[in-house]
Amino acid sequence: MLLTEDLTQDRMRRAFAEYVGTAFLVAAVVGSGIAAQRLTGDAGVALLINAFATAGALAAVILAVGPLSGAHLNPVVSVVDAAFGDLAWRDVAAYVPAQLLGGCCGAVLANLMYGRSAVSLSRHARGGGGMLLAEVVATVGLVVVVFGVVRSGRAAAAPFAVAGYIAAAYFFTSSTSFANPAVTVARMLSDTFAGIAPGSVAAFVGMQVVGGGVGWLTVRTLYPA
Amino acid sequence: MLLTEDLTQDRMRRAFAEYVGTAFLVAAVVGSGIAAQRLTGDAGVALLINAFATAGALAAVILAVGPLSGAHLNPVVSVVDAAFGDLAWRDVAAYVPAQLLGGCCGAVLANLMYGRSAVSLSRHARGGGGMLLAEVVATVGLVVVVFGVVRSGRAAAAPFAVAGYIAAAYFFTSSTSFANPAVTVARMLSDTFAGIAPGSVAAFVGMQVVGGGVGWLTVRTLYPA
Amino acid sequence: MLLTEDLTQDRMRRAFAEYVGTAFLVAAVVGSGIAAQRLTGDAGVALLINAFATAGALAAVILAVGPLSGAHLNPVVSVVDAAFGDLAWRDVAAYVPAQLLGGCCGAVLANLMYGRSAVSLSRHARGGGGMLLAEVVATVGLVVVVFGVVRSGRAAAAPFAVAGYIAAAYFFTSSTSFANPAVTVARMLSDTFAGIAPGSVAAFVGMQVVGGGVGWLTVRTLYPA
Amino acid sequence: MLLTEDLTQDRMRRAFAEYVGTAFLVAAVVGSGIAAQRLTGDAGVALLINAFATAGALAAVILAVGPLSGAHLNPVVSVVDAAFGDLAWRDVAAYVPAQLLGGCCGAVLANLMYGRSAVSLSRHARGGGGMLLAEVVATVGLVVVVFGVVRSGRAAAAPFAVAGYIAAAYFFTSSTSFANPAVTVARMLSDTFAGIAPGSVAAFVGMQVVGGGVGWLTVRTLYPA
Repeated sequence: MLLTEDLTQDRMRRAFAEYVGTAFLVAAVVGSGIAAQRLTGDAGVALLINAFATAGALAAVILAVGPLSGAHLNPVVSVVDAAFGDLAWRDVAAYVPAQLLGGCCGAVLANLMYGRSAVSLSRHARGGGGMLLAEVVATVGLVVVVFGVVRSGRAAAAPFAVAGYIAAAYFFTSSTSFANPAVTVARMLSDTFAGIAPGSVAAFVGMQVVGGGVGWLTVRTLYPA
Repeated sequence: MLLTEDLTQDRMRRAFAEYVGTAFLVAAVVGSGIAAQRLTGDAGVALLINAFATAGALAAVILAVGPLSGAHLNPVVSVVDAAFGDLAWRDVAAYVPAQLLGGCCGAVLANLMYGRSAVSLSRHARGGGGMLLAEVVATVGLVVVVFGVVRSGRAAAAPFAVAGYIAAAYFFTSSTSFANPAVTVARMLSDTFAGIAPGSVAAFVGMQVVGGGVGWLTVRTLYPA
Repeated sequence: MLLTEDLTQDRMRRAFAEYVGTAFLVAAVVGSGIAAQRLTGDAGVALLINAFATAGALAAVILAVGPLSGAHLNPVVSVVDAAFGDLAWRDVAAYVPAQLLGGCCGAVLANLMYGRSAVSLSRHARGGGGMLLAEVVATVGLVVVVFGVVRSGRAAAAPFAVAGYIAAAYFFTSSTSFANPAVTVARMLSDTFAGIAPGSVAAFVGMQVVGGGVGWLTVRTLYPA
Repeated sequence: MLLTEDLTQDRMRRAFAEYVGTAFLVAAVVGSGIAAQRLTGDAGVALLINAFATAGALAAVILAVGPLSGAHLNPVVSVVDAAFGDLAWRDVAAYVPAQLLGGCCGAVLANLMYGRSAVSLSRHARGGGGMLLAEVVATVGLVVVVFGVVRSGRAAAAPFAVAGYIAAAYFFTSSTSFANPAVTVARMLSDTFAGIAPGSVAAFVGMQVVGGGVGWLTVRTLYPA
C-alpha cells in the first residue's frame, strides 16, 4: 500500500512528465514554424515542415513519457480521461497547470533558440465560422483516436495514431488543428508562423471544449465497455 | 449467448464505427485537397500534402475503430471480407450504407470547414484507359495488402500497411488511387482539388469492382487457408 | 510430412508471392517517377515523391506477402538468404525468375497506367565511379538491415526497417539506390524518370553482387549465431 | 560463464556494430545533404530531404544493430547509459572510438559516392547563443526520448522514437540538432550542406555534454527505478 506521501510524490512525478512533454511539443510546434518561415517561400512546404516536425516530436514524446503519465499533453484529454473514470480528478488538477506551464516554457524556448526575445505576443488573428467548426472537428477526432485506441486495449499504438492524426489534421482542418487548450494558450507567446493572437484564444478553447464533449459521447457510443 | 436484440445493437454500433471512420477519411481527403490547392502552386507539393494527410488520417482511424468494425471504410473491402466468410452478408448490408453516408458527411464537413457551401458538384472529369486501368490496379493492390496482412494473422499491422499503400498509390497510379466506391461517391460533392465529376463515377466504381474481384482471386491463391 | 507434390505447390505459391510483390514494387518505383516528372519542376520534390511512394509500397508489400515467401523481391536478398542456409537453393531458382518477371510486369503496368506504350527502352545512362561505389554501399546497407533484423529475431520489424532504409538511400547514395538486380533490369523498360539505359545495367548489377557479398560478410561478423 | 577471451570478442563485435551503424548514419546525413543541395533551390525542401533521409536511416540502423550493441551511435548516449549502470565503462571506452571512426568513414564514403575528394574541411561556421542553446535542448530531448523509452521497458519502440525525434529536431532547433559528438566531428570532413567548420565543433560538443547531463537528471527524476 502506498502511503499518502508516496502518492503525492508519484503525482508530482507524473505532472512533471506532463510538463516536460508539453514543453517539447510546443517547442516543436513553434520552433518548426519559425524554421519553416525562414526556409521557404512556398506555404505548402512550410506547413509540411510544421506538420512533419510536430508529428515526429509528438510520437517521440508520447513514447517517452506515456507509461508514466499517459502523455496527455492536453487538458481536454486529461478531462475526458477523468470523465471515463480512468484518471482521478485530483490528477487533472495537477496535470492541467503542468501542461499550461510546460507549453509556455516550450514557446519561450523556441523563441530563444531562434534568437528572438523570450516572449512576443502573436498578432496572428484566427477565427471565423469555418475555422471554429474546424476546431470542434479536430478535437472530436483527437478524442476518438486517443480513446478508441486506449479503450480497445492497444495503448501501445497511441503514439503512432496521435502523430498520424495530428499530421493529417494540420491540413484537413482549416484551423491547422490546435485541438489543445494548453498549446493554444502557449502559442500566443510567439509572434511567428505558429502564433495565435490573444483575442482569438477564447473562441478556439471554447470550440475545443465542445469538441471534447462531442468526442466523449462518440467514444462512449463506440466503446461503451 | 447474445440475444437477437444484442446482436442488432452490436451491428448498429459497428456500422456507426464505419460511419465515423469513413467521415473522417473523406474529410481528410477532401479537406487536405482544399488546403493543398490554397497553400502551394507546385502540383507535386500539393499531392504530397493530399497523400500525406490521407495516410495519416487512415492509419489513425483504422487504429481507433479497427477492433470494433474492422475499419473497412470501403464497400469493396466489406464485400471481399464477406466473400471470404469472415463477415456476415447482413453486416455488409449495414456497413455499406454507413460508409456511403459517412463519406458524404465527411465531404460536407470539409466544405464547411473551409467556408464553402455545404455541397458543390465537382466538375473534375476523370477517366480514359490509363486511369481506368489504374483504378483496377489500385484496388487489386489494396485488397492484397488488407487481406494479405489479415489472413496471415497480423491484423495489428493493417493500419500501417494500408496507410503506406495508399500514400504510395496516390502517386504510382495515374488516377491517384480512389479504390473505394464510398469515397468516390462522396468526392462528387466538393468542386475542389480532390473532387470527381458525377459523370466519371460509374466507370471508376466499375473498375474498383473488377479490381476487388481480381484482388480476391489473388489473395485466395496466396493465402488459401 | 508434406508430399513432393505439396512441396512443389508450396514453392509455386511462394514464387507467385515474389512475382506479385516485385510487380507492385516496380510499378510503384516507375509509376511514381512518371507522376513526379509530370507534377513538379523541382527535382527535390520529384525525388521526395519517388522515395516516399517507393517506401510506402515496399512496407505494404512486405507486410502483405512477407509471412509467405519472406518478401525478398530482390535476387541479392534471396541468394544471401540461401548462403545463410535459411532458404533452399531450389527456392532461389524459383524466386529469381519470379522476381524478374514480376519486375518487368510492374514496369509495363506503370507505363500503361500513365497512357504510355507498354515498353520503351530507357535512354537514361547511369554510371561513373561515384555511382558504382554508391550501388555497393546501397546494397551492403540493405543486406545489413534485412539480415540484422531477421537474425536478431525481429522479422516483424523488417517492413519498417527496409522502407526507412530505402527512402533514405534514395538520397544518401548518388545512384538513388537501385540495390536490386530484378528492379534494375525492369527499370530498363520505361523511358521515364526512374529508367536506366540498358548499357548501364551490367555495371549496376555487378556492383550489387559485390555489395551483397560485402553485406553477407558484415552480417556474419555482426550476427555469427 | 564467458571466459575473458569471449568477453573481449563480444565487446569487439559490439564496438564493430557501433562502427557500422555510425558510418551509415553519417553517410546518410552528409550524403543526403549533398543530394539536397544539388536537387533543389528551396531550402525548406532541402532540409526536408536531409531530415527525412536521416530519420529513415536512423530507424533502419537502430533496428539492425540495436539488439547487439544498443545502437547508441552517439558518445553522449553511451556515457549516459554507463551513468545509469547499464553499460560497463570498459564498453564505453570501446564504443566511443568506434563511433568516431565510423562517423568519419561515413563522411568520407558520402564524399566519394558524390564524386568529391575523400575529405574537404567544412567552412560552414555554426554558433551563436541561440544555436548553442539549441544544442543543449536537442541533446536533452534525445536523452529523454532514448532513456524514457528504454527505462519504461519498451526498447522495441526506440528506433521509431529516435527517428521521429531527430526528424522533428532538424526543424524545431535552430542548429538542426547535431546532438551527437561523433557525428559533429565527422561532419567537419565534408565542405557541403551538412558540414560544420572545425572552429565551431568544440562549442557544439560542449553544449551536447551539458545537454547530456541535464537529460540524465531529467530521466532520473522521471524514471527513478
